[in-house]
Amino acid sequence: MIILGLDPSLSSTGWGVIRCEGARISHIANGQIKTVAAAPMSARLAALQAGLAEVIAAHLPDRSAAEEIFVNKNPQSTLKLAQARGAVLAACGTAGLTVNEHAARLVKKAITGTGAAEKAQVAAMLKVLLPGVAIAGSDAADALAVAIADAHLFRLA
Amino acid sequence: MIILGLDPSLSSTGWGVIRCEGARISHIANGQIKTVAAAPMSARLAALQAGLAEVIAAHLPDRSAAEEIFVNKNPQSTLKLAQARGAVLAACGTAGLTVNEHAARLVKKAITGTGAAEKAQVAAMLKVLLPGVAIAGSDAADALAVAIADAHLFRLA
Repeated sequence: MIILGLDPSLSSTGWGVIRCEGARISHIANGQIKTVAAAPMSARLAALQAGLAEVIAAHLPDRSAAEEIFVNKNPQSTLKLAQARGAVLAACGTAGLTVNEHAARLVKKAITGTGAAEKAQVAAMLKVLLPGVAIAGSDAADALAVAIADAHLFRLA
Repeated sequence: MIILGLDPSLSSTGWGVIRCEGARISHIANGQIKTVAAAPMSARLAALQAGLAEVIAAHLPDRSAAEEIFVNKNPQSTLKLAQARGAVLAACGTAGLTVNEHAARLVKKAITGTGAAEKAQVAAMLKVLLPGVAIAGSDAADALAVAIADAHLFRLA
C-alpha cells in the first residue's frame, strides 16, 4: 500500500510518499512544490497541479491524505490556502484518488501520542518512524506526518 | 476576442462565453457544470475541471474573468467555494488563461450602471445586452455578467 500525504499551500505544497506493509512503514520520497509569487493565481494553481501530477505518476499511490482545513484568523490567507487545496485535491481526483481528511490534532496524536504536540516533537518522531529520511522542508514533514497518520488511523500499520 | 466568464462554486459552476468585436458584444454559449453532492471532494473538484476543460477546448477563449472572492458569514461555505474556485482557476491556468478578478460591485455597475443593483436587474440587463439569449441558470447568468463586465472594464467593448 502506497500512501501520498499532502500539505497544500499556494507558495509551497508539501508531499510525502510512504509504503505501508503489514505493521511496517517505510519512506519512499518527499518534496515541496513551489510556485512563483509574482505569477498570476491561475498559473500558480496550475503549477501546483502539474507538480503533483508528476509525483502521482512517479509513485502511483493507492490512497492519499491531508489535514482538515480550517478558517484561520486571516481571511485572505484562508482564501489562498483553500484555493491551493482545491487545486491539489482536484489533481488527486483526476488521478482517481480520494483524499482522506484528518484533523490536525489526530495527526499529531497518531505520530507522537498527544494531540497537543509541538511541531518539533512531530519532526523528532518522524526521524524515529522513518529512520535516515532526508526531509525537504517543514511542508514535506507535515505531508509525511499526515501520510503516516492515515496509515495508523485506518489501522493499515 | 472571446471572453470566458466564470462563476465558480462546488455544486454548480456557471460559465458564459461571449464574443467582443469593437463595441459589439454577442453571446456564444453558456452553461453550468454540476457536481454530485455525495461524491468525494476530490472527485467533485476534478469533475469541475473536466467540465471546464471541455468548455475551453470548445470555445478557445482569449481571456477569462471571475468575480473576486470574499469571506462570507459561513466559514464552511467559504472554504468549499474557495476550493472550487481553486480548481476552476487551475483549469484556466493549465489552458494558459489568466483569470481577471473583478469586484462584484464593479460587475453590477458595468452591467446596470449601479454597483448596488439587485440580481433581477442584472438578469434583465443581460437580456437587453445579449438579445434572445437562453440562459442555463443563475450561475450561468452571473458568469455572462462577469464576461461582459470584463469587456467593459478593459474597454474592449
